[in-house]
Amino acid sequence: MAGNSIGKEFTVTTFGESHGKFVGVVVDGCPAGLPLSAKDFQEELDRRIPAEPKIVSARVEKDTAKVLSGVFNGFTTGAPIALMVENKETDSSDYEAIKDLPRPGHSDYPARIKYGGFNDYRGGGRFSGRVTVALIMAGTIAKKLLSRYDIDVFAYTQSLGKVKTDKQFSATEIRKNKNAAATRCPDLVCAEKMEEAIINARKEGDSLGGVIECIAFNMPVGIGEPLFDSLDADLAKAVFAIPAVKGVEFGAGFRAAELRGSENNDAFLLKNGKVVTSTEYSGGVLGGLSSGMPIMIRVAIKPTPSIAKEQKTVNLSSMENAALSVKGRHDPCVVPKAVPAIEAAVAITIADHLIRSGFIPKVLKEH
Amino acid sequence: MAGNSIGKEFTVTTFGESHGKFVGVVVDGCPAGLPLSAKDFQEELDRRIPAEPKIVSARVEKDTAKVLSGVFNGFTTGAPIALMVENKETDSSDYEAIKDLPRPGHSDYPARIKYGGFNDYRGGGRFSGRVTVALIMAGTIAKKLLSRYDIDVFAYTQSLGKVKTDKQFSATEIRKNKNAAATRCPDLVCAEKMEEAIINARKEGDSLGGVIECIAFNMPVGIGEPLFDSLDADLAKAVFAIPAVKGVEFGAGFRAAELRGSENNDAFLLKNGKVVTSTEYSGGVLGGLSSGMPIMIRVAIKPTPSIAKEQKTVNLSSMENAALSVKGRHDPCVVPKAVPAIEAAVAITIADHLIRSGFIPKVLKEH
Amino acid sequence: MAGNSIGKEFTVTTFGESHGKFVGVVVDGCPAGLPLSAKDFQEELDRRIPAEPKIVSARVEKDTAKVLSGVFNGFTTGAPIALMVENKETDSSDYEAIKDLPRPGHSDYPARIKYGGFNDYRGGGRFSGRVTVALIMAGTIAKKLLSRYDIDVFAYTQSLGKVKTDKQFSATEIRKNKNAAATRCPDLVCAEKMEEAIINARKEGDSLGGVIECIAFNMPVGIGEPLFDSLDADLAKAVFAIPAVKGVEFGAGFRAAELRGSENNDAFLLKNGKVVTSTEYSGGVLGGLSSGMPIMIRVAIKPTPSIAKEQKTVNLSSMENAALSVKGRHDPCVVPKAVPAIEAAVAITIADHLIRSGFIPKVLKEH
Amino acid sequence: MAGNSIGKEFTVTTFGESHGKFVGVVVDGCPAGLPLSAKDFQEELDRRIPAEPKIVSARVEKDTAKVLSGVFNGFTTGAPIALMVENKETDSSDYEAIKDLPRPGHSDYPARIKYGGFNDYRGGGRFSGRVTVALIMAGTIAKKLLSRYDIDVFAYTQSLGKVKTDKQFSATEIRKNKNAAATRCPDLVCAEKMEEAIINARKEGDSLGGVIECIAFNMPVGIGEPLFDSLDADLAKAVFAIPAVKGVEFGAGFRAAELRGSENNDAFLLKNGKVVTSTEYSGGVLGGLSSGMPIMIRVAIKPTPSIAKEQKTVNLSSMENAALSVKGRHDPCVVPKAVPAIEAAVAITIADHLIRSGFIPKVLKEH
Repeated sequence: MAGNSIGKEFTVTTFGESHGKFVGVVVDGCPAGLPLSAKDFQEELDRRIPAEPKIVSARVEKDTAKVLSGVFNGFTTGAPIALMVENKETDSSDYEAIKDLPRPGHSDYPARIKYGGFNDYRGGGRFSGRVTVALIMAGTIAKKLLSRYDIDVFAYTQSLGKVKTDKQFSATEIRKNKNAAATRCPDLVCAEKMEEAIINARKEGDSLGGVIECIAFNMPVGIGEPLFDSLDADLAKAVFAIPAVKGVEFGAGFRAAELRGSENNDAFLLKNGKVVTSTEYSGGVLGGLSSGMPIMIRVAIKPTPSIAKEQKTVNLSSMENAALSVKGRHDPCVVPKAVPAIEAAVAITIADHLIRSGFIPKVLKEH
Repeated sequence: MAGNSIGKEFTVTTFGESHGKFVGVVVDGCPAGLPLSAKDFQEELDRRIPAEPKIVSARVEKDTAKVLSGVFNGFTTGAPIALMVENKETDSSDYEAIKDLPRPGHSDYPARIKYGGFNDYRGGGRFSGRVTVALIMAGTIAKKLLSRYDIDVFAYTQSLGKVKTDKQFSATEIRKNKNAAATRCPDLVCAEKMEEAIINARKEGDSLGGVIECIAFNMPVGIGEPLFDSLDADLAKAVFAIPAVKGVEFGAGFRAAELRGSENNDAFLLKNGKVVTSTEYSGGVLGGLSSGMPIMIRVAIKPTPSIAKEQKTVNLSSMENAALSVKGRHDPCVVPKAVPAIEAAVAITIADHLIRSGFIPKVLKEH
Repeated sequence: MAGNSIGKEFTVTTFGESHGKFVGVVVDGCPAGLPLSAKDFQEELDRRIPAEPKIVSARVEKDTAKVLSGVFNGFTTGAPIALMVENKETDSSDYEAIKDLPRPGHSDYPARIKYGGFNDYRGGGRFSGRVTVALIMAGTIAKKLLSRYDIDVFAYTQSLGKVKTDKQFSATEIRKNKNAAATRCPDLVCAEKMEEAIINARKEGDSLGGVIECIAFNMPVGIGEPLFDSLDADLAKAVFAIPAVKGVEFGAGFRAAELRGSENNDAFLLKNGKVVTSTEYSGGVLGGLSSGMPIMIRVAIKPTPSIAKEQKTVNLSSMENAALSVKGRHDPCVVPKAVPAIEAAVAITIADHLIRSGFIPKVLKEH
Repeated sequence: MAGNSIGKEFTVTTFGESHGKFVGVVVDGCPAGLPLSAKDFQEELDRRIPAEPKIVSARVEKDTAKVLSGVFNGFTTGAPIALMVENKETDSSDYEAIKDLPRPGHSDYPARIKYGGFNDYRGGGRFSGRVTVALIMAGTIAKKLLSRYDIDVFAYTQSLGKVKTDKQFSATEIRKNKNAAATRCPDLVCAEKMEEAIINARKEGDSLGGVIECIAFNMPVGIGEPLFDSLDADLAKAVFAIPAVKGVEFGAGFRAAELRGSENNDAFLLKNGKVVTSTEYSGGVLGGLSSGMPIMIRVAIKPTPSIAKEQKTVNLSSMENAALSVKGRHDPCVVPKAVPAIEAAVAITIADHLIRSGFIPKVLKEH
């Protein structure tokens, strides 16, 4: 398989570029019998664009999903589901001017080399965060599938720049405040500080990164494969596919490296006749398999590379050192937009493994 | 593909269990014309077992690779290369006693559920670190392939428990001290402290984790694919396949989340007519493609879950709470053993992408 | 990968149903730098529908390809190329009436069982010959790619029912008469008899099958892999994906089973300094690799199962024996329509193998 | 995936060459809980070598399977099952002499070009029929799996050169005479004539081909996928992977091309409350899915290319025309040996699809 597909049974193939006409996705392997309509995608697509204009790019598109195939009489048929969204706001004028000036921190330079200059460089082209729209549409289907089995996947902003919430949230709390704050932090006091931080960074022609935590609640035990297709390996791969991700950890993650085994091991115990663990250092994954405890992933998002501040670069045409101040409509922080993308990547991976394991059948019974 | 294979063009399929008779690997897609013999594997296999008995498990096996296919007249033929190593030291007596007592932090519990009890539970079976022997053999081939193009992959122990080196090492320094310290830290002063830390943890019936940094030097520009098969996504997947890995980050990684764009962006500049970056926050990957700068990955390894200290668990047969003290021959710290495994995972992934991109051809010219 | 994709480097994923709104395809892995525009697809799409209304279904749609992604400034970019065609002529009224009456020779019955009744049964849904439109669009790209290397793929109708041409055609002859006859037989005398045969079968409420030969001219030597991904295995798989195909053979094919080795072996000889064979019994494939001689595939197409004549079937709702006369707009013979589909399947497979082998690079040089 | 693997859930990766030390296979994705031991493979391996020395190569090896992994306490564990067989009879002396003289009808010439001369050319190397030993071992596991669900796969010699049996055989008849005749034809009168034909061809320094029919009895309905992963496409691919196969057809196959729809359509009817068809022209596959009727595949095997009779070839070293008489130990007819290989290919493909569909679960219940 060429590189634009992921998943072995629930297979997601995306297409489209930032400034092309469409962004879309084909979901192959979705079981038959899942209720699905174009409306299902709207909430997730809307959620991608925080309502607060002060913290987002001026490129605000109302994205509407079009279902091209795979749904009949309101249910999935088992055939591939193709979805697409039109790119309406594609003002490419700013890009021509800087065509030869690769933006630091961006794919511009290696992409030009890789594709011999044939790549669509406008707005990052295929490498743009815009393509997460496709991921989010596929993720919507995955989430609907998981919710049938009471599995919920929630992500939220845990830190933004140096502002950080230390609270642990229950599924109910995250769900309740899912869209309450434009920064997607369910700790609303903290969320406000995050918003200020973004506004300040933008004023200074700069940008911010942050950390997103994603939790999958109510996972069955034993999902995943040893070694290569371990659940954590596949989750990490899917999450790293999202532009701007620079780190992924499960449970205690990098902190585990400083702990002793006696501290880091989660003891098993019985609770209401079910095997659970007393602590959650493992992040719900043991030996690549789900342990039955919530899966907890933390994801580091780098600050947006496109900034107004002047930066040093190289003119690839004249091969001379040059300076660059990125104009165009850029987000001062992509963390809020990345929240639903990470949920999507996680839900897609879990759906894939649940189908592989036989936990989710190929035909869903009426519900 | 079922889950025991990785790589699209340079495809690695592993087999074997901790207490089975053999551990092995089939490498498919290796270009024809690479000089290869059984001896090539010895150095890497030896390196897996630090020479210092105080810091390793009592299970010390001299592993010797047997080449089953794919090599003719001293060169790879283009046909699949099958390799295997015999498991000689397989005293399984300790495991029968604790068959129903899943070790905290281990795959025992989810594996039993996943396989309905049919899994080989002895020594962790298929989930054991022992299977990295297969990865290391495949990695040896990948490294030989890369070295033909002067690409070197080196890993070393950066921290062990709370002992940490802050030095940055050149390729030459890492190579020089590759095997100098049993803890695989090229900062030999620090290495000694690490050794002490392991010895102390062992005395207390406890274990330690650590952080390994892996660097790929001399990478060409533009290797990888956008999104799903991005170089970082595939590297992360391969590295997470190694047991005990709990976190992966590139370049500044989680630190990037706290930086501003103006700090985290690596400015481009010309050096000897070549485009390079002034800093290395990106870890050599931009938009999923190699930037031409060294690829830098940091990997968090958790403390070995098998410890002598008593822990709480559940008897899965009687379904009662229970206590467990893990006997058997366990490493008090798997970080040193993980060093060559991580190098292998990284080399395999890079080799795969170099073949996919056409950078490495299917037939190597005489050299 | 779920089942709607084919190809390892040049990967084709199709979507759409007979009576859905769209039929489409995503081509991933096409090298960057191939000139491509929507117009390129028109000739092939037109060719799918013979101009002679007497021999085709009343469902005559002017199909127009829409390029959704992957092309920039007139060249492929290396990103996935998504294409779609609208289904305009979808009168589904005839299907409701026979929803519970599976058509003999059709997928209706097993599809209903497989998908638990959720499948789109209208016009065969995902199983319809209509979906070859997607294959043909992907094939157009593959052919353009191959033609850059002077490799041509041509198919033609060799027999239709009991009418058969015994001529061997050169590339020039097939190309010249490619669209001359509605039945796609370059022997124009024979073509006329074939047309009559179809008209007669239709009058009697019946249908015809036939044999299509497909030849790939100017193949390089050594393309393919031993065993599983042998060129013939992959070609056969791609061709069998086309509805109505019941047999595939290479060169002498089933006739080879009756020959002796001394008759069937193609002797090697030098011709203008090049190794060629004196005969072409092998069909251009030796041990799964291309021999450098033209690849010759013969494909058996069954008679269209949808016929007006009354047939016996079972009412799947009442579970009683029943009778059925298929109404709706059906082709009395799908052989002419299958000709470009087979060319597409063959071109896609060859393009995939040429990219895998490195013969076609990932970035095309200006031409 | 590189080219030496097949199957998406039940994945078979083979390795080994004709004159290497071992031939082997890794079966990944076999459900846990299947009883399996080394003995299970013996019957199938023995069956590959007909007991009648007059009709086979002088290379008669008693092949014994060694189980390297994936079996514990007599059951499969869900981990990859690696198997290997030693090559004992590898007299390579005859090959050195003809190293530069490619045998007509063999892979020698394209293999040399493909691998730049690095390939193991001895006895055809990776392209030898010897590698079907690996396929047969994997097929043994697939058959054991299928037999748990009462699905039986039987192949037999239907024609050999010009000797042909016209009988249709029941599962019971084929099973009864499975090994009765060295030529693997259950019509024992015909079998004797086939034996004579082989003996005569050998005397004349020549060779014979033939046709093998393979039937899968008791298939469930709806197995397979539309289009690319249709059951017939995947079966054809697997069967074409076997050396010497030149044609594959299902049911009426090429004969269907001459029939009318009213003749070729299999009418549905109820029989004991089950939907069956009155005839079996479709070969048990409709629209790429199993219809529930027996799957019937006919496979054309070409005459062995290695013959004693002098043939024309080209000296690839001196690039001059040359003559060649193949010495060494060759089968005058590989049809009998191909019978279990085709059964294996068919059983592997069906097992893969039954697992993909969820019909066979990932953990088998005690039986």
